[in-house]
Amino acid sequence: MTKINDRIILGIDPGTLVMGYGLIHIKNNTLSLLALGVIKLDKYEEHADRLKKIFERLIGLIEEYHPDELAIEAPFFGKNVQSMLKLGRSQGVAIAAALSKNIPINEYSPKKIKMSITGNGNSSKEQVAAMLENLLKFKHADKYLDATDALGVAVCHYFQNKGLASTKKKAYSGWEAFLKDNPKRKA
Amino acid sequence: MTKINDRIILGIDPGTLVMGYGLIHIKNNTLSLLALGVIKLDKYEEHADRLKKIFERLIGLIEEYHPDELAIEAPFFGKNVQSMLKLGRSQGVAIAAALSKNIPINEYSPKKIKMSITGNGNSSKEQVAAMLENLLKFKHADKYLDATDALGVAVCHYFQNKGLASTKKKAYSGWEAFLKDNPKRKA
Repeated sequence: MTKINDRIILGIDPGTLVMGYGLIHIKNNTLSLLALGVIKLDKYEEHADRLKKIFERLIGLIEEYHPDELAIEAPFFGKNVQSMLKLGRSQGVAIAAALSKNIPINEYSPKKIKMSITGNGNSSKEQVAAMLENLLKFKHADKYLDATDALGVAVCHYFQNKGLASTKKKAYSGWEAFLKDNPKRKA
Repeated sequence: MTKINDRIILGIDPGTLVMGYGLIHIKNNTLSLLALGVIKLDKYEEHADRLKKIFERLIGLIEEYHPDELAIEAPFFGKNVQSMLKLGRSQGVAIAAALSKNIPINEYSPKKIKMSITGNGNSSKEQVAAMLENLLKFKHADKYLDATDALGVAVCHYFQNKGLASTKKKAYSGWEAFLKDNPKRKA
C-alpha cells in the first residue's frame, strides 16, 4: 500500500530526442520539488543507444530517490507510424525500468495533465511551467520546459489520487504477484 | 566477447497479442533447438498487464536458459499509429528485459529473416517453418507458427554472424560500461 501522506512521485516524459523527469515529495498534503531534469538523447545517433540511456538513467533515478510511484506522460497520437513506433519503444523501456524495480505506474495524456495543472487542456508549456513554479515554489521553470511536462505529470498524478487511496484506479502493479509465485526470483 | 562456437541465441517476436520465442544452441557450427513457445497475451485485457507479462516471461527465459544473445523480429511498418505505439511498447519492454540482464540485442526485419532462412523475402510462415524443421531436425513446427518467426530470427542472427566475430556489426551492448562506472549497482 502506498503511503498517501509521505511519498515520492517520479514523473517522466519519455521522448525519442529528450527525456524529461521531475520528482516531487508529498508530506502531509504539502508538495515540494525534489529534482527536475532533462536527459538529452539526440547526442546518440543510434536509437538503440537512446533506449539504453533511458533505461540506465531511469534505473539510476529510482535507486537514488526511491520513488513510491511513477507517472508517465503518454501521448497516444502522433504524426506517423515510424515516429509512433519509436515513441512506443521509449515508453516501453521506461515502463520496464519501473516494472523491474516494482514501482507502480500510471499514465496520463498531455491534455489530461494540462487540464489537471492549469484547468485548461489546451494551455501552453509556459502556462504549465508558471503554475508549477507557483505550486512548488521554485523559479525559472521556463529554463526547463522539457522537464516541466514531466514534473506536470507527477503533480497531475498526485491531484488525481489525492484522498483516493481506497478507490485508486488500476495501475501497473510491478511484479509482486509474480515474485510471490517465484520466491527464488530476484528483481 | 561472445563465444562463437558454443552459444545460445534467444529469438523473440514480441507482438501485442502474442509473443513467440525460440531458443537455439550452436556448438561447433551445429544448430539445435532448445525451446520453442508462445506467450499468449490476449487473455489480459489491459495493455499494461501484457507489457508486464512480456517483461516477466522474458526475464524468466533469460534466467532459465542464459542466452548469450537476443535477436528480435522488429517490423518497422504497420497499419496505423495506434498499433505502432503498442507494438513499440512491446518491443521496448522486451529490449529493456535484455538490457537489464546485459544481453546484446540485434534486430531484424521480417523480410530479412525470411530471406535468410528460405532465400526468399516473401516466403510464407509455412515455408519458413518447413525450413526450420529441416534445419533444426524437429517436427510439427506448423503447430507453432507464432513461435517459428521467433525461432527464425534466432537462426537468421546466427547466419548473419557466422564467422563474422571480428567484424560484427554494432548491437545493443547491455549496460556493462554503465556498471563499470557504477560498481555498486546490480543488474
